Amino acid sequence: MEPLPSEVFSGRRVLVTGGLGFIGSNLALALADAGAQVTVVDARYPRHGANPHNLDGGAAGAQRERIAVVDADLADPRAHAAAADAEIVFNLAGQVSHVDSMENPVFDLDVNTRSHIALLESLRHDNPDVAVIFTSTRQLFGKPHYLPVDEDHPVAPVDVNGISKHATEQLHLLYGECYGLRSTVVRLTNVYGPRQRLRDDYQGFLPIFVRHALLGEPIHVFGEGEQRRDCLYVDDVVECLLRAALVPEAAGEVFNVGNDEHLSLREIADAVVAAAGSGRVECIAWPDDRDAIDIGSYFGDSSKAKRMLDWSPGTRFVDGIAATVAFYRRHLEWYL
Amino acid sequence: MEPLPSEVFSGRRVLVTGGLGFIGSNLALALADAGAQVTVVDARYPRHGANPHNLDGGAAGAQRERIAVVDADLADPRAHAAAADAEIVFNLAGQVSHVDSMENPVFDLDVNTRSHIALLESLRHDNPDVAVIFTSTRQLFGKPHYLPVDEDHPVAPVDVNGISKHATEQLHLLYGECYGLRSTVVRLTNVYGPRQRLRDDYQGFLPIFVRHALLGEPIHVFGEGEQRRDCLYVDDVVECLLRAALVPEAAGEVFNVGNDEHLSLREIADAVVAAAGSGRVECIAWPDDRDAIDIGSYFGDSSKAKRMLDWSPGTRFVDGIAATVAFYRRHLEWYL
Repeated sequence: MEPLPSEVFSGRRVLVTGGLGFIGSNLALALADAGAQVTVVDARYPRHGANPHNLDGGAAGAQRERIAVVDADLADPRAHAAAADAEIVFNLAGQVSHVDSMENPVFDLDVNTRSHIALLESLRHDNPDVAVIFTSTRQLFGKPHYLPVDEDHPVAPVDVNGISKHATEQLHLLYGECYGLRSTVVRLTNVYGPRQRLRDDYQGFLPIFVRHALLGEPIHVFGEGEQRRDCLYVDDVVECLLRAALVPEAAGEVFNVGNDEHLSLREIADAVVAAAGSGRVECIAWPDDRDAIDIGSYFGDSSKAKRMLDWSPGTRFVDGIAATVAFYRRHLEWYL
Repeated sequence: MEPLPSEVFSGRRVLVTGGLGFIGSNLALALADAGAQVTVVDARYPRHGANPHNLDGGAAGAQRERIAVVDADLADPRAHAAAADAEIVFNLAGQVSHVDSMENPVFDLDVNTRSHIALLESLRHDNPDVAVIFTSTRQLFGKPHYLPVDEDHPVAPVDVNGISKHATEQLHLLYGECYGLRSTVVRLTNVYGPRQRLRDDYQGFLPIFVRHALLGEPIHVFGEGEQRRDCLYVDDVVECLLRAALVPEAAGEVFNVGNDEHLSLREIADAVVAAAGSGRVECIAWPDDRDAIDIGSYFGDSSKAKRMLDWSPGTRFVDGIAATVAFYRRHLEWYL
């Protein structure tokens, strides 16, 4: 892919919702680096990914000064005021936890769908020409019918989180069709990298693996760990989101964004242990309560994103996980 | 199809949500006629279909005495108390208006999805063996890719209502898979018959046609009225829902329920005028604001419902509309 022109975001007013979280903070920092005027809106819900250290202190850098932070849920008028002024909204706010979505499904709907309607309504009325990039998840495909999973694959969520995220995808596209918002949906596979919440088990398997390795603990892999995944380094995700905001033809489109490197969970765990130089991998029997939601192997077909956005995932897992481990070795106290 | 055995619902405890509404009240009365112990839960939201006359006075009959009515939203503990005791829940509560869903999308999500999660959570904890029949809508298919539309047709809602109803379909099926509820989804086409709200334009084209004809007013058909629909008489819907509750194999299944009689909007309007003996049909140009949401012709493929539920739509439009008109001639003051 061609590199983005260095000045393309310079001076542009950009909103990042969920910008204290994992992907959001990496995106906000990249935008600030590129000279954008960045506003972050984040509700800092407990157990979501928000971490003030992501944008403050040594974990960020000088570009932090170009980022304004608004503490607000998306349904809050303060969020709408920030949105009204943006040229681009990267809408990353939400809950990603399967477990939490099943334990409190109403709250999952509230933060993943209901408050997004409020944001979309505010944009429709106050800022209808805005570009909105909504991040969704491979979770909504459920157990794949075929691999790699492209955008035409049927949606069949296996949890409340997948249902609420899918509804919100559709709402973004609907507001594009009916009111002119330039909405783009990006469905992400498993993402890893700096600034991810490590301290509990609610953000997917990758941060769990990283935490255990860093602490010298065993990484438990169910069965033989043969299911494959296409892990994506956060810098590659940020690059994809930036491109989606710049390509006019991306409006109204859905992109599956994954990686061409397909590794088994066992290979992933081994690579994490090797990068950390600590921890170990233990294969254990499948717990009963996981059987119902296991989806087997998953990897996405990113050819539409590659073609339309001139994007490609450039980071091999061995390199991305080395950078990830190095980051947490420096800042571990902020993430545990 | 074989008639249902006359005693099959006798003494059974049945909940009908939205039971003061159009389909709900017809269903509740049929169940009471069949000897069931019927509880109706209805929030009586303004402009939804709830009408106390549907179950009271001359519009109902002696079977009304066997129906208990609880005034409550599905998120209300009184609704959950009623649900905890039911052997079968016919979950018909919700908003059906396209226009209202676009004007107040948060409320549409609240009544069509959020409160249903609360009901499903209560069933999961207090009554996990229950059979739940959830009524959904053909609206969620959007503009058909092919006709007739079967259950495998992609879902592509053209309004907030379709998005929220589809999310709630998925929630019902998810609660079946994860917690054992015997959930069945029935997607209905355009339904007509006694006890439908006629007084405004929020319930679809059929009650609008009927009202105008009864009042001797013109029925406006857009363009030449060539788009076809498969209108379904409410007694046929009731029969289908009853069968869905009785067939064990229906658990976890989705059924498209339509009619094999496909009439153009012009033919439908003409038949309504003929049955009423009043009104007239006028073809007018397409209003600009309808273009964005027009879906062309629609008719569903009901073969799965016919096969698995031993059901078929027995009422020709000419007969159903005659019975409909006769009902409203007797009770018009309650519906206008």
